[in-house]
Amino acid sequence: MQFDYHYLLDLAIILLTTKIFGLITRRLHMPQVVGALIAGIVFGPLLLNVLTQTVFIKQLSELGVIMIMFTAGLSTNLNELRQTGKAGLVVALIGVVVPLAGGMGVGFIFNHDSPKALMENIFLGTVLTATSVSITVETLKEMGKLNTKVGSTILAAALIDDVLGLICLTVVSSFSGDAAAAANANVVIVLLKILAFFVLAIGFGFIAIKGLNWYAVKLGRSNLQRFHLFAFIICLLMAFAAEHFFGVADIIGAFAAGLIIGNTLGAPYMEQRFHPLSYLLLTPVFFASLGLSIQRTTMNLQLILFTVALLAMAVLSKLVGCGVGAKLCGMTKKESIQVGFGMVCRGEVALIVANKGMAAGVVPPEFFGPIIVLVVFCSVVTPILLKMSFKGAETLPEVRE
Amino acid sequence: MQFDYHYLLDLAIILLTTKIFGLITRRLHMPQVVGALIAGIVFGPLLLNVLTQTVFIKQLSELGVIMIMFTAGLSTNLNELRQTGKAGLVVALIGVVVPLAGGMGVGFIFNHDSPKALMENIFLGTVLTATSVSITVETLKEMGKLNTKVGSTILAAALIDDVLGLICLTVVSSFSGDAAAAANANVVIVLLKILAFFVLAIGFGFIAIKGLNWYAVKLGRSNLQRFHLFAFIICLLMAFAAEHFFGVADIIGAFAAGLIIGNTLGAPYMEQRFHPLSYLLLTPVFFASLGLSIQRTTMNLQLILFTVALLAMAVLSKLVGCGVGAKLCGMTKKESIQVGFGMVCRGEVALIVANKGMAAGVVPPEFFGPIIVLVVFCSVVTPILLKMSFKGAETLPEVRE
Repeated sequence: MQFDYHYLLDLAIILLTTKIFGLITRRLHMPQVVGALIAGIVFGPLLLNVLTQTVFIKQLSELGVIMIMFTAGLSTNLNELRQTGKAGLVVALIGVVVPLAGGMGVGFIFNHDSPKALMENIFLGTVLTATSVSITVETLKEMGKLNTKVGSTILAAALIDDVLGLICLTVVSSFSGDAAAAANANVVIVLLKILAFFVLAIGFGFIAIKGLNWYAVKLGRSNLQRFHLFAFIICLLMAFAAEHFFGVADIIGAFAAGLIIGNTLGAPYMEQRFHPLSYLLLTPVFFASLGLSIQRTTMNLQLILFTVALLAMAVLSKLVGCGVGAKLCGMTKKESIQVGFGMVCRGEVALIVANKGMAAGVVPPEFFGPIIVLVVFCSVVTPILLKMSFKGAETLPEVRE
Repeated sequence: MQFDYHYLLDLAIILLTTKIFGLITRRLHMPQVVGALIAGIVFGPLLLNVLTQTVFIKQLSELGVIMIMFTAGLSTNLNELRQTGKAGLVVALIGVVVPLAGGMGVGFIFNHDSPKALMENIFLGTVLTATSVSITVETLKEMGKLNTKVGSTILAAALIDDVLGLICLTVVSSFSGDAAAAANANVVIVLLKILAFFVLAIGFGFIAIKGLNWYAVKLGRSNLQRFHLFAFIICLLMAFAAEHFFGVADIIGAFAAGLIIGNTLGAPYMEQRFHPLSYLLLTPVFFASLGLSIQRTTMNLQLILFTVALLAMAVLSKLVGCGVGAKLCGMTKKESIQVGFGMVCRGEVALIVANKGMAAGVVPPEFFGPIIVLVVFCSVVTPILLKMSFKGAETLPEVRE
C-alpha cells in the first residue's frame, strides 16, 4: 500500500524529461523522438537510475506502441501511394532487400554460435529495413526541395518500406514466438495463417468502411466522440485478433485498423482526437521505456566493433539499395544519391521491431543498445548527408531552370 | 509471453460495454456513469466473470481517478462560488454534517465489534457527504428550472460539499493509512501536515498561476500543446507530493492542481484536450474497475438490512440537512424540499472515497457492494423525487408569474 502512488512520480519524470530532451534535440534539428529515447537512457538503470521499468510502465508502453501504429495507419494515404506509381515501389523493394541481407551479414560475423543465431540475424536484418521519413521530410522542407521528384519518391518509398518492414516482422516473428514454436513443424500453416490474416483484414476493411461511413452519417458531426471510441475499440480488437488467431504481431493489427479507419468519413477528425492520448501519455512512456530497457552490459571490443559495423551497414545498405532502385527508374546519379541518403534514417518502426524481437527472445539484449545507438546516429547524420548531396546540385543546370 | 496481449481484449471489452450500458442508462435518464458501473458488475467476477481486475487495469483506474479529480478541479469556477454567497455554503455545511453523522449512526448499528469500527464508521459517514450534481442539473435543465434560486443554490452547495467531502476524506484517511499508523500517536502532527499541505498548495497556486500565465502568453496559441503537458505534469507531481510529504490523498493533490490550472490563461482549451484521454481510456476503466472490485459475498439478512438502512439514511440525511440549511437561508418550505431532493444524488466522489477507503483497509469489502447499490439507487430516485417536488410547485402563484 505504502508505495502504491509512486507511479505518479515516475510518470511525471517521464513526461517532463522526454519533453525537455525532445525540445533540445529538436533545436539540434533532430526529431523529438530521439530526445525522448535519450531521456529514458539517461534517467534509466543505465545511467542515473532514477526510473526503473515497472510492470505498469511496461504495459502502458505496449499500449503506446499500439497507438503509434494505429495513428501511423490512420495517416497513411492509400490513394497518394497509388499515384506515385512504380518509382516508389522499386526504390522501397530494393531498399528493403539490401538492408535485410546486409543486417543478416553483420549478424553472422558477430553472432554465429548461438543456437538461435539464424533467427536472431534475420531479425537484425528486419530491424534495418524500415526507413523513418520524418527527419528527411523536415530537412527537405527546410531546403524547399520536398515537392521535387526526389522528395515525392522518398516519401512514397518510405511509406511502402514501412509496410514491407512490418510484413518482414510478421513473417519472421511468426517463426520465432513461443506459440509458433509448437506449430513450427509446419511452415505452410504459419504462412497460411499470415495470408488468412491479410485476406480477412482486407475483407473486414471493406465491410467496416461501409458500416462506419453509414454510422458517421447517422451520428452527424455532433456525436463523433462516440465514433472515436468505436474506432479505438476496433483497433484494440484487431490487435488482439491478429496475435490470438493468426500469430501476427498485435501492432500489425493496430496498423491495419488505422488504415481502415483512415479511409472512413470520420477520418479527418480522428487523428486530432487521438493526439492528446498519444502526447500526454502513451508516446512519451513508450520511448522512455525503450531507453529504460537497455541493460548494463560490459562494454567490450566485440560490442564496439558490432556497433560500428551495424552503423556502417545501416547507412550503406540504404544508400546502395535505394540508390540503385532510383537509378533503375531513370533518375540521374545525383538524384539517386539524394534518394539514397534520404532513406538512411531509422526511427520508430526499427525500435518497435527490435522491442518485439526482444520480447520474443530473438533479439539478444546486448543487441538492443547498438540498435538504439543506430537510431540516434542515423537521425544525426541524415540531415548532414542530405544537405551535402543537395549542395552540389545547386550548380547543376537542370536545377537552375 | 503467450498471454501478454490479453490486456487488449480486456480494454476493448471495457470500452465497449461501458459505452453500451452508458447509452442505455442515459436513455433511462440516468447518468452514463451508472451504466459504466453496471457494466463492470455484469462482466466482472460477480456475474459473467469475463473480466478480472488485473494489475494493469487497477493501475490504469488509479490514474483514471487522478484524471477525474484533476478535471473536476479544472471546471470548478472559484469566482462563481464566491458570488452565490452564503446560501450555498449553509446548505452545503449542514448537508455534510447530517449525512456524516447519519452514516456513522448506520455504521454503529451494524458494525461495532470490529477493532477498527470507529474508523470504518466515520469513513462510511464520509462516503455519504458528497453530492453528485450532474443528474440534478440534467433534470432541472429538462424542466427549465436550472436558472432559479433553487437551481443555483443546489449548484453552489454541491460544489462546496464536494470540497467538504474531500476535506473529510483527507482528515479521516490521515488517521487510517499505514503511514499514519506509525505517527498516529501524535494527532497534532497529522493535522499540522494537512494544514501545511493546504497552505503550501495555496501559496504554490498563486506563484504557479502567475508563472503559467507568463508562459502561456510567451508560447502563444500555437504551442498550447506543451502547456497541457506541463499542466498534467503539475497534476501528477502535486498528487504525488500530497501523499508522499503530507499524508494527504493523491486525488486531493490532483484536485488542487486542477483548481490552480483552471485559473490560468490556458484554462479554456484545457478540458477539451484532456477530454479524449478521459473518455477514450481512463474514465471507462475507472468505473468498470469499481464494478470489478465487488467481491462475491454471501447475501445474508444482515447485509440486506444494512443496505436498506444505508439507502434510507442517504436520502433522508440530505433531505433534512440541506432542507434545513435552505430554510435557514429564508427559502419557503417547498423550495427547501426541492433543494433537499436536489442534493440526494451521490456519484463519483462517493465511489472514489469508498475506493480509497477500501485500499486503506477502512472500508470493509462487504460495505462496497451496498455503496455501489446506493449510487445506482440515488441516481434512479433523484430525478423522480425532484420532478414530484416541482410538480406541486407549478400551481403556486409565485411560479406562474
